[in-house]
Amino acid sequence: MSKKLTSRAEDYSKWYNELVVKADLAENSAVRGCMVIKPYGYAIWEKMQAELDRMFKETGHQNAYFPLFVPKSLFEAEEKNAEGFAKECAVVTHYRLQNDPDNPGKLRVDPKAKLEEELVVRPTSEAIIWSTYKGWIQSYRDLPLLINQWANVVRWEMRTRLFLRTAEFLWQEGHTAHATKAEAITEAELMNDVYSTFVQNFMAIPVVKGRKTESERFAGADETYCIEALMQDGKALQAGTSHFLGQNFAKAFDVKFANKEGKKDYVWATSWGVSTRLMGALIMTHSDDQGLVLPPNLAPNQVVIIPIYKTDEQLEAITEVVNGVMKDLRAVGVTVKFDNRDTFRPGAKFAQHELQGVPLRLAIGTRDLENGTVELARRDTLTKEVTDLATITEKVKSLLTQIQDDLYNKALLYRDTHITEVNSFEEFKEVLETKGGFVSAHWDGTTETEDKIKELTKATTRCIPDSFEPEEGVCVFTGKPSKTRVLFAKAY
Amino acid sequence: MSKKLTSRAEDYSKWYNELVVKADLAENSAVRGCMVIKPYGYAIWEKMQAELDRMFKETGHQNAYFPLFVPKSLFEAEEKNAEGFAKECAVVTHYRLQNDPDNPGKLRVDPKAKLEEELVVRPTSEAIIWSTYKGWIQSYRDLPLLINQWANVVRWEMRTRLFLRTAEFLWQEGHTAHATKAEAITEAELMNDVYSTFVQNFMAIPVVKGRKTESERFAGADETYCIEALMQDGKALQAGTSHFLGQNFAKAFDVKFANKEGKKDYVWATSWGVSTRLMGALIMTHSDDQGLVLPPNLAPNQVVIIPIYKTDEQLEAITEVVNGVMKDLRAVGVTVKFDNRDTFRPGAKFAQHELQGVPLRLAIGTRDLENGTVELARRDTLTKEVTDLATITEKVKSLLTQIQDDLYNKALLYRDTHITEVNSFEEFKEVLETKGGFVSAHWDGTTETEDKIKELTKATTRCIPDSFEPEEGVCVFTGKPSKTRVLFAKAY
Repeated sequence: MSKKLTSRAEDYSKWYNELVVKADLAENSAVRGCMVIKPYGYAIWEKMQAELDRMFKETGHQNAYFPLFVPKSLFEAEEKNAEGFAKECAVVTHYRLQNDPDNPGKLRVDPKAKLEEELVVRPTSEAIIWSTYKGWIQSYRDLPLLINQWANVVRWEMRTRLFLRTAEFLWQEGHTAHATKAEAITEAELMNDVYSTFVQNFMAIPVVKGRKTESERFAGADETYCIEALMQDGKALQAGTSHFLGQNFAKAFDVKFANKEGKKDYVWATSWGVSTRLMGALIMTHSDDQGLVLPPNLAPNQVVIIPIYKTDEQLEAITEVVNGVMKDLRAVGVTVKFDNRDTFRPGAKFAQHELQGVPLRLAIGTRDLENGTVELARRDTLTKEVTDLATITEKVKSLLTQIQDDLYNKALLYRDTHITEVNSFEEFKEVLETKGGFVSAHWDGTTETEDKIKELTKATTRCIPDSFEPEEGVCVFTGKPSKTRVLFAKAY
Repeated sequence: MSKKLTSRAEDYSKWYNELVVKADLAENSAVRGCMVIKPYGYAIWEKMQAELDRMFKETGHQNAYFPLFVPKSLFEAEEKNAEGFAKECAVVTHYRLQNDPDNPGKLRVDPKAKLEEELVVRPTSEAIIWSTYKGWIQSYRDLPLLINQWANVVRWEMRTRLFLRTAEFLWQEGHTAHATKAEAITEAELMNDVYSTFVQNFMAIPVVKGRKTESERFAGADETYCIEALMQDGKALQAGTSHFLGQNFAKAFDVKFANKEGKKDYVWATSWGVSTRLMGALIMTHSDDQGLVLPPNLAPNQVVIIPIYKTDEQLEAITEVVNGVMKDLRAVGVTVKFDNRDTFRPGAKFAQHELQGVPLRLAIGTRDLENGTVELARRDTLTKEVTDLATITEKVKSLLTQIQDDLYNKALLYRDTHITEVNSFEEFKEVLETKGGFVSAHWDGTTETEDKIKELTKATTRCIPDSFEPEEGVCVFTGKPSKTRVLFAKAY
């Protein structure tokens, strides 16, 4: 397979699909819509997991694990949630295969092993978790209950794309229960803040923090908080959501608690999640026509060192120096890999690590040993320089911080120059078609208008940003009064 | 629910079931045979995961993720594996539910949404992984391929018990590919060693390392290495297995590689796994009639501190001292929790932490502040002493090491005194019935004899220990010649 990528300008979508596969992040599997996350892609996901997990625990949450399957009847309990999710799901109907009497060597479903009640492979776990919480919550002493789960979920998607929309994906889902409405709202907002901090500081992706309109809310939520990112092609991507669920699930599953005075009431709930979709956001925010560009915080290897040599003696001399460099780098917390494979030439290694987005590349040859130098290449800027070997540790350390900041600022500049205020529907359509990005427009607050705008432009409301002040205006579509602007965009 | 446990002597099985639930480790769910792993239980599992993951990476393995579903036809590819696994599985036959026209508010399977090919929820991932490896392996440069996956798997078990045998469980499964038979065998042995080191050093559970007899091998394996542990009731528990798969899966999925000379051959494979079953082994090795006993390496909280006070002023004074103690303990890597909940009395807290197996408990009251003392209680020995507050950090640190060692040595003594050599079938049966544990006996090497012994005694061959030297003898059952003893036991 050629390592050369389709350029973004040529075909952004094709560029993305090729990049994911060629950079060894993921690939399609033998199962329709399900992906294989390859070791390099999974190593990035592990870094995300580790940091998020640390942040969840720091904010008082514990992990637990709930069943993969949800009995069909539990889905029926929360009406809106059932409407929103239970339809396009993988359904387990049988529990046994048997040898096919008509086809030796083949298996068939054993018709006698039909389940009394079908099991749905979880598309999300509110139903199974709230049926469990009923047994865990009796009194105010059991609250708040602050639980997170790392798990796989399945939603039967018709059109799938690696990381962005797959039938099975990996995610975390937080599910919390509280004694008061105010506390639950605070929790939902806090977790949206945690997501925002993580995505901005760790992934170097700027986001707009806000609330969803009613029609874009999670099925069963009273309020959905979200963070929205902007990809290089001007399309938005929902990077995380946090839901205030009111007492909807508590009522559906009859989860009540006794307060200090012994009075019983339904508990208040939140749920919040991010998924392997973040990998898609990461790729589409930073990468270029040469391949993946990784922020140092997420790079499995922040530095790769490549020896340039002809003889075994030369390699030995280089290796000795490299061992020292690696030791020094590791001592200051830098992850570094010495690519001394003798099965590939330096050029092939350069190309591979560029494609895979390693932030810094060091090349050391025989002449470098004589001169006390090393060639240093930055992946994000594709610039090279020859620098002193003696001060390489400090140089690398400071460059990694620089790259992390530069990537964020570059994406921020793009994002900020792609939020466009419009005051008519003509302008709305024109900006969307020519410039893309977020369109800030007044809207009359009805789902009907959202639907019509979506039908005509494919743009949806992304969020009502926290930063937007109330502002009197008229809906760009209907001319009816509006009290605030919202952000519209075409989205992934 | 009463916190008092059934004693082990009274009913070991009931003791186990109650302990798992009352210590907040896990519980049964609304889904038949599937468990909920509660936060406290999951925190222990996370500690196991973290250490195993570190050991896998240290031995050169990378994590990846493969689909939850396996198309039925992939199961048919490796005949023995299909025989062994494909039968009792959860089978997805449909991908959509719909509103039931006959029952408003109810859902039913959409008959139009039937899958062309049924999907099996993975009982293990050899089939899906080897169908993927076919695309990854072309030449010797792609080998060895050393991959591990952390995942959930489902086996439709009829009789389930929390952690020990559940329909869904969590595990890791390593799947490696190698250029030579010798290298694959070395890998399978290495991973069995990793398991043995982990279970002994980290979980404080002594194991017998060895090989399975042919009839007890993994379906599709040429050799199964295993570690066998002994529970307090004299029954064995298979704690981990590592399989040398020969070229069986490579042949089934046509995975060939070109060597340096360009010659093509099938690759050699291994797979290896441990699961949440280890939680069962942990519980049944160390715990007592008072509840869970945790080795310090696996305790979510190694130390709990409980304040004994009447007034807010007293609590304040105690808190100030405790904050200093916690800071010092954390500085030396000890995990410590200050249980200052005002919703429970000290007695209730003592009982809870005892039930949950916290290795060390410190109680500090007003008089302790005056005397510069603290009450220190060991969970494993249930002993208490009053000790100096000034030297508490060193004391705790050394006691935690002591407890870890003591637990291992106690279990080792039990295990070593429960390996009994027998030389007749009468003796075999008597030892099994009266003393339990491992029975070391000569056996003629046939599956037929194993089956008969199992039928008569419920004991199975557990392993041929690595430590056993060849020894001429006669089978205790048939009198036929035997070249080595094997270990039999009743097992979980």
